[in-house]
Amino acid sequence: MSEKKCPLNCEQLEKLTEKFPTPFHLYDEKAIRANARALKAAFAWNPGFKEYFAVKATPNPYLMKLLKAEGFGADCSSLPELMLSEAIGLSGEEIIFTSNDTPAYEYEKAVKLGAIINLDDITHIQFLEQCAGLPELVCFRYNPGPLKGGNAIIGHPEEAKYGFTRAQLFEGYRILRDKGVKRFGLHTMVASNELDATYFIETAHLLFDLVGELSSELGIKFEFVNIGGGIGIPYKPEQKPVDLTAVGEGIRKLYEKAGFTSLDVRMECGRMVTGPYGWLVSRVLHKKHTYKQYLGLDACMANLMRPALYGAYHHITVPGKESLPHDFVCDVTGSLCENNDKFAINRALPAAEIGDLVVIHDAGAHGHAMGFNYNGKLRSAELLLRENGEVVQIRRAETVKDYFATLDFEGLNKFTV
Amino acid sequence: MSEKKCPLNCEQLEKLTEKFPTPFHLYDEKAIRANARALKAAFAWNPGFKEYFAVKATPNPYLMKLLKAEGFGADCSSLPELMLSEAIGLSGEEIIFTSNDTPAYEYEKAVKLGAIINLDDITHIQFLEQCAGLPELVCFRYNPGPLKGGNAIIGHPEEAKYGFTRAQLFEGYRILRDKGVKRFGLHTMVASNELDATYFIETAHLLFDLVGELSSELGIKFEFVNIGGGIGIPYKPEQKPVDLTAVGEGIRKLYEKAGFTSLDVRMECGRMVTGPYGWLVSRVLHKKHTYKQYLGLDACMANLMRPALYGAYHHITVPGKESLPHDFVCDVTGSLCENNDKFAINRALPAAEIGDLVVIHDAGAHGHAMGFNYNGKLRSAELLLRENGEVVQIRRAETVKDYFATLDFEGLNKFTV
Repeated sequence: MSEKKCPLNCEQLEKLTEKFPTPFHLYDEKAIRANARALKAAFAWNPGFKEYFAVKATPNPYLMKLLKAEGFGADCSSLPELMLSEAIGLSGEEIIFTSNDTPAYEYEKAVKLGAIINLDDITHIQFLEQCAGLPELVCFRYNPGPLKGGNAIIGHPEEAKYGFTRAQLFEGYRILRDKGVKRFGLHTMVASNELDATYFIETAHLLFDLVGELSSELGIKFEFVNIGGGIGIPYKPEQKPVDLTAVGEGIRKLYEKAGFTSLDVRMECGRMVTGPYGWLVSRVLHKKHTYKQYLGLDACMANLMRPALYGAYHHITVPGKESLPHDFVCDVTGSLCENNDKFAINRALPAAEIGDLVVIHDAGAHGHAMGFNYNGKLRSAELLLRENGEVVQIRRAETVKDYFATLDFEGLNKFTV
Repeated sequence: MSEKKCPLNCEQLEKLTEKFPTPFHLYDEKAIRANARALKAAFAWNPGFKEYFAVKATPNPYLMKLLKAEGFGADCSSLPELMLSEAIGLSGEEIIFTSNDTPAYEYEKAVKLGAIINLDDITHIQFLEQCAGLPELVCFRYNPGPLKGGNAIIGHPEEAKYGFTRAQLFEGYRILRDKGVKRFGLHTMVASNELDATYFIETAHLLFDLVGELSSELGIKFEFVNIGGGIGIPYKPEQKPVDLTAVGEGIRKLYEKAGFTSLDVRMECGRMVTGPYGWLVSRVLHKKHTYKQYLGLDACMANLMRPALYGAYHHITVPGKESLPHDFVCDVTGSLCENNDKFAINRALPAAEIGDLVVIHDAGAHGHAMGFNYNGKLRSAELLLRENGEVVQIRRAETVKDYFATLDFEGLNKFTV
């Protein structure tokens, strides 16, 4: 059972809160960079390997800049994500634009940046051509449908809104070829938060087979397969991280067996890149005892929605009390007027007191990014622990002024009822 | 089966989109005001009756101002909601502050405004006294626990984080009395989106009994009971709205039987006040056919999260095609990279085409309010159809600049990696 640790201890966190009041998200540069290198190392056998960080997981340009320095590109799904990529100096094929139900202005921007366009649907060939022109390189997203089982978060692929059917792939690449497109990629993503390494190897297998069939049927050459993201993280202490070396080696064997030499392997992981290296740091505001025990934090689901949304487990520790008996069974709550605003239900913790710091682990992805302003709650700051030990703010906390930004109060005064 | 209608027809909506591009939320002043009057009429027998609009449902001050003109107060759960109430000129006991896990600065503001303070926990008596002083009038939130069954959205009361136990009520009011507090209220809310009128009558019964017991045991006099909100709305065309007259009359009988004369009945409805009178107006961006049919809208779960979050039903119509056969079975999707970004699954609609307007009904509460920026999605504008037929913007759409407001791009340029 792995111990879950925050890189700063209780004293260091307390010191930090003098400058940055709780709640905040804290990220660890050193761990994120080491992890990025581990992923690259697992695919070092493939010279064209590239990971495109799924920006949606943690759309913070400071973190994206760190990842760029490690050779990562960006996987974008919207105009603001494309703009963040541009802001940190990513360009051209360092960006892949994987969207669905896409408005024209987003394709225009993506094509203008020279990003790899990953089309979600066969009708988008014409749509893209009309709104932005067909680029030199085009990728399709494949949805294997009933041919491949999905997992719990993404559901059955045949129920998923994403991607082309197998028949549409053949038709779509033929259309591209006949329109003069010369460079091709193939993408799929049929899992989310999956911890079974074989899953990713099977996904690569599926794509390798398809590339073979498509190439021989249509006489086209694929530059890359993008096996998507979906690598899970061990939210629970008893879970184990995905063995990246095993994934890389498993895919290498299939690659060599299939006789590929110049096909690049691409990924678009988000969660596994930053997830375990981000913590939501909060403080106990209240303790309550009615039919159950409650620990009320100064954070709420506006800062981390996964437990409320999916019933997801996030490990919780009380800095300075890690070694005390974990005999205080409680619900850990936020302050929303939503009964599901709970970070944990019936969790055994050390006897935390009002004023204690509380650390919620694995909040480095799909944490701050999913925050909302329901109940007038404001999203928290994001801090980065640099490799030299310094902590810098990489996003300020929201203010009431931000919350009111889209309201016209002068107009309100003139509004007669 | 009730027809679900948007107050503007296809032509009028098309005209409107020339000025306000889709997607947007549209509210109907006339219907909201008529509904507000119907609620008041149902309780006309109780001279002190007051509805405190649950701001969280639709925190738009323009709508709050309309409701204030109809005699409604505001039920607030956070500082920004208190500030909105202040901005439209609500003051003192026109505001009730019903929060939980409350930070000190929110109690300070609520007390400063003279709002009715509705405490969620017995420990908050001391907390409130220390941070803001005890006001003249205090209300407690009761959680009946296993004594009363909850409903699907709010769960079993004994699992809910809210409120005092029965024993704590007796203890709490005794403490208040001994500290010199003279004015008392009692509140509960054990349901959400409930369509059974008897539920609210039973809730009043519960509170009336308790007020009797508490009064005689402690020798204190209650000014009001707040039976909470929770009145549901008929999201499905075959459902019927709650009969407000039946609720009012049922409560009146119990009130008279219990011999009350000066006890005020209060409510804090949100959903039923604005919910049915708000529509999310969107446009078909794409049609897709893979393993299923998909209708891709220019709105997404950032504009209305209930279907994705709760699997909630929202009725959908295609303006101008209402009378065509509903034989196009499809999933109605948004563009998020989340497979649950669907407004409807396997819904039978008329054969909508790209460019058609689509209206999502009953989006007037817990719609815009719950929007997030996940995937870089921006929240839409809110428009109000005035009684004179004019349409005015009551909240502008978010821009990319809003989305980037908490990021320091100058700092980003200096950020070395």
